[in-house]
Amino acid sequence: MSSHHIVRDDQEPALIIANGEACKQELMNQLLEWSPLVIVLDSAIERVIDLGIKIDVLIGDFDRGFNPEDYLEKQYPLEIVRASDQVYTDLEKAFQYLIQRSIPAVNVIWATGRRADHTITNIASIAKFKDDLKIVIYDDYSKIYRIPNLFKKWYEKETIISLIPVGQVNGITTDNLVYPLNEESLILGQRTGSSNSVLNDGIVTISYKEGDLLMMECHD
Amino acid sequence: MSSHHIVRDDQEPALIIANGEACKQELMNQLLEWSPLVIVLDSAIERVIDLGIKIDVLIGDFDRGFNPEDYLEKQYPLEIVRASDQVYTDLEKAFQYLIQRSIPAVNVIWATGRRADHTITNIASIAKFKDDLKIVIYDDYSKIYRIPNLFKKWYEKETIISLIPVGQVNGITTDNLVYPLNEESLILGQRTGSSNSVLNDGIVTISYKEGDLLMMECHD
Repeated sequence: MSSHHIVRDDQEPALIIANGEACKQELMNQLLEWSPLVIVLDSAIERVIDLGIKIDVLIGDFDRGFNPEDYLEKQYPLEIVRASDQVYTDLEKAFQYLIQRSIPAVNVIWATGRRADHTITNIASIAKFKDDLKIVIYDDYSKIYRIPNLFKKWYEKETIISLIPVGQVNGITTDNLVYPLNEESLILGQRTGSSNSVLNDGIVTISYKEGDLLMMECHD
Repeated sequence: MSSHHIVRDDQEPALIIANGEACKQELMNQLLEWSPLVIVLDSAIERVIDLGIKIDVLIGDFDRGFNPEDYLEKQYPLEIVRASDQVYTDLEKAFQYLIQRSIPAVNVIWATGRRADHTITNIASIAKFKDDLKIVIYDDYSKIYRIPNLFKKWYEKETIISLIPVGQVNGITTDNLVYPLNEESLILGQRTGSSNSVLNDGIVTISYKEGDLLMMECHD
């Protein structure tokens, strides 16, 4: 448990700091305020340690020639989880750690930007863990999460909404979007629902039948 | 045609500067050296104009309240292409422009980073235009392109290679990779081939039967 704020129970989302582009400190601070558990991935610790935040867990395979135990001098207590299985990415290992601890939700920062292979794989992993973990990826321009098969949320008129299929999504119907969908499919590499927008102040409804549909609330 | 170097014929790849994160000037310069045609997307011109490079074409829907004709004073000649069709992204409109001009290949920069919806959609559009245009997306950490159904290339040992399926790719077989694939499938959101690496100095062979497989050569 972090000591930087009032301890909350494990129902609040954990926070994972991954190894992509750093976000603005303001975004990190907002998310830290509500996180009972802060996890840093592998060598990202080298960039995180100087930010002066309390880290609870460091997860990685530590194959880049740095010794995670060195950080015990700077952060104590710090749980170090060595996960050398090469089948999973560091982010996926952190998701598995949370699932094992029965923590149901997580916010993720620094998971996009820099290496494109990591960005794509990290975003797609939201779908991979959908049954066990509620995952939201944030960066300075984007909030990304998987929507359930029936999704309703209030938005302001003209809010930009991008619907991105992880592969193929079928039977999508929307209400209150400028470019409506009616029992249609979105297919990555053929047709995505990027940069749609909200028609009127009010509830947007999105339903779909098959696949994994990501909501990306993005701004310039 | 650009005037900043010896004019080459249209068989050299064009260069598109999109509206994501700027790359290092060095990467841009390398790509500019070989590009007979430089296209800038929409409001990216506001960031590109001060770099002092010769722009040939400006494409966009120009819906953000800026007047593209203002840039004629700073760049002349400059072809302005107004493309207001909302079905296609600005990057896709630029691809269509190149296809119409029978230009067979293009390098793209500034297409990743910043908004995640744009990043994903831009990368996926490589597959959408595969029949008509050879597209390579570059950023400071990544080189991204679709590989043909039989791909062979010489790599140095331990080069990181990520194989990312645009949706689902079937029947993948590899030779000379540390984590080999043998008639296997990769499925976005279930199993991607991120962060594989080259076993020995020499030819890497990748073949696959169905789908669109992206090669991402990335580094930290």
